[in-house]
Amino acid sequence: MLTTVDAFGRIGEENAFAVLARATALAAEGRDIINLGIGQPDFRTPEHIVEAAIKALKDGAHGYTPSVGILPLREAVSRDLNRRYGVEVDPNLVMIVPGGKVTMYAAIRLFGEPGAEILYPDPGFPIYRSMIEHTGATPVPVPIREENGFAFSAEETLALITPRTRLLIINSPANAGIAALDGPHEAVTAMVAEFDRRRALVVEGLNALPGVSCATPRGAFYAFPNVSGTGWGSAKALASALLEEAGVAVIGGPDFGVHGEGYLRLSYANSAENIRAALERMDGFLRKRAAA
Amino acid sequence: MLTTVDAFGRIGEENAFAVLARATALAAEGRDIINLGIGQPDFRTPEHIVEAAIKALKDGAHGYTPSVGILPLREAVSRDLNRRYGVEVDPNLVMIVPGGKVTMYAAIRLFGEPGAEILYPDPGFPIYRSMIEHTGATPVPVPIREENGFAFSAEETLALITPRTRLLIINSPANAGIAALDGPHEAVTAMVAEFDRRRALVVEGLNALPGVSCATPRGAFYAFPNVSGTGWGSAKALASALLEEAGVAVIGGPDFGVHGEGYLRLSYANSAENIRAALERMDGFLRKRAAA
Repeated sequence: MLTTVDAFGRIGEENAFAVLARATALAAEGRDIINLGIGQPDFRTPEHIVEAAIKALKDGAHGYTPSVGILPLREAVSRDLNRRYGVEVDPNLVMIVPGGKVTMYAAIRLFGEPGAEILYPDPGFPIYRSMIEHTGATPVPVPIREENGFAFSAEETLALITPRTRLLIINSPANAGIAALDGPHEAVTAMVAEFDRRRALVVEGLNALPGVSCATPRGAFYAFPNVSGTGWGSAKALASALLEEAGVAVIGGPDFGVHGEGYLRLSYANSAENIRAALERMDGFLRKRAAA
Repeated sequence: MLTTVDAFGRIGEENAFAVLARATALAAEGRDIINLGIGQPDFRTPEHIVEAAIKALKDGAHGYTPSVGILPLREAVSRDLNRRYGVEVDPNLVMIVPGGKVTMYAAIRLFGEPGAEILYPDPGFPIYRSMIEHTGATPVPVPIREENGFAFSAEETLALITPRTRLLIINSPANAGIAALDGPHEAVTAMVAEFDRRRALVVEGLNALPGVSCATPRGAFYAFPNVSGTGWGSAKALASALLEEAGVAVIGGPDFGVHGEGYLRLSYANSAENIRAALERMDGFLRKRAAA
């Protein structure tokens, strides 16, 4: 019989991918689905980055690189941190990794074990809690409250620290935006401008829905509307009904943590046209269901 | 004080990289060093693979992919396994990962914990033992003996299996060669032919050295000569002296396991010219030191 380490039974799922699978299955059945569930930007990578990758391939940059990343890239990160925050960071303390989850995995594995406590933002990225539980450490949610503008409260966070606290995960603004390093910034500026237009569209549209209010998000491309005024007691049930009945895929707030009840998450990494159509469908659905 | 999980104190080093660092430092001092320590092939990636990568970049394959890899690649792996070994492997059971160490990390983490025993080839890739010790499992070396043609013995391996054995790592032929999937094979054929020429050069040259004998390797691009006849009791001391005094970087067999004493490892992922020069230097060194 195959015996694996118990810790692998304690890895959670990122429910956005389950919603994506269900949305894909409904679309395969011929249903018209607008997917605001997943945060997959609909922009191509800026052209100068693509050209740099093609040049590296042609120039023969094909062999092993240092496992922490090539020095010119680490130096560029250091310069960018200096430009943004005025801090001096030694490039030898910079490590390049393929994606964000790797950093969480490494940091949580490095500090997490039974008896240790790890503080993490809640609602937040579901993988924080999943990884903490995987290591056997105790997950301690730091509440991210709408009344604090979805930032953490220093007092509340400090009060959660104990002698067993090993790691405190901070992400502020929550799910921060695009990191553009050296090179022309026009493409990035254009993307940011377009996300800004969509953000205004989403926030205005959500605030016009019956029972819904939405603060303006300050990072990334997600809105986190408060839906507690809709009469739906369960945000996950509302998300599921929106997908099945109105053809709009969104994620229920509880998929991002215990403090996520009463909220939905919508990605606006989608076209303005799709965002408008999705808002109309949600409006129709909520008016019909409120009337029912 | 920073407290990290004990397991990270049990991660070993791959000494080939320490030798590489020393060789690089000596070269920076102006010393003429031939590096046969590291297995970094000196061929460019075949052109059709580079062209496919450039096409994908131009076509806009820039977004998230499934975490197990895109289906066409998993299907190509499945077809390749069928061509090579006549087996049918469902592409849904194929997972694409960036490099070999990831597979070892995942497999050993999945099965390794205190009380479990993991069998691994010795001499072999140093990361096997390092990762097994990291998980707290007991590393059980499977001797890879010259008298068995550097293959594992089925009897010896079976005798090491106990009720606590969780994982048995087999790599045969040890450190196997290049996997070329679909697409033109000319470039791969040319590489294999060149490695074949270099292999003959290395094996013949090593067998001509005083006190050295070398079997013909059957995979990858490493020779593992027996140096017990040189009078050097420690293969690591010999490797170190070859680097410091003769300017040839090679790795001592003990860096690959407890059964590696009495051997050196030479990579022949280097030019024929460099290989010839390195063999001459080794010859001069061994004759001088044998005479001393």
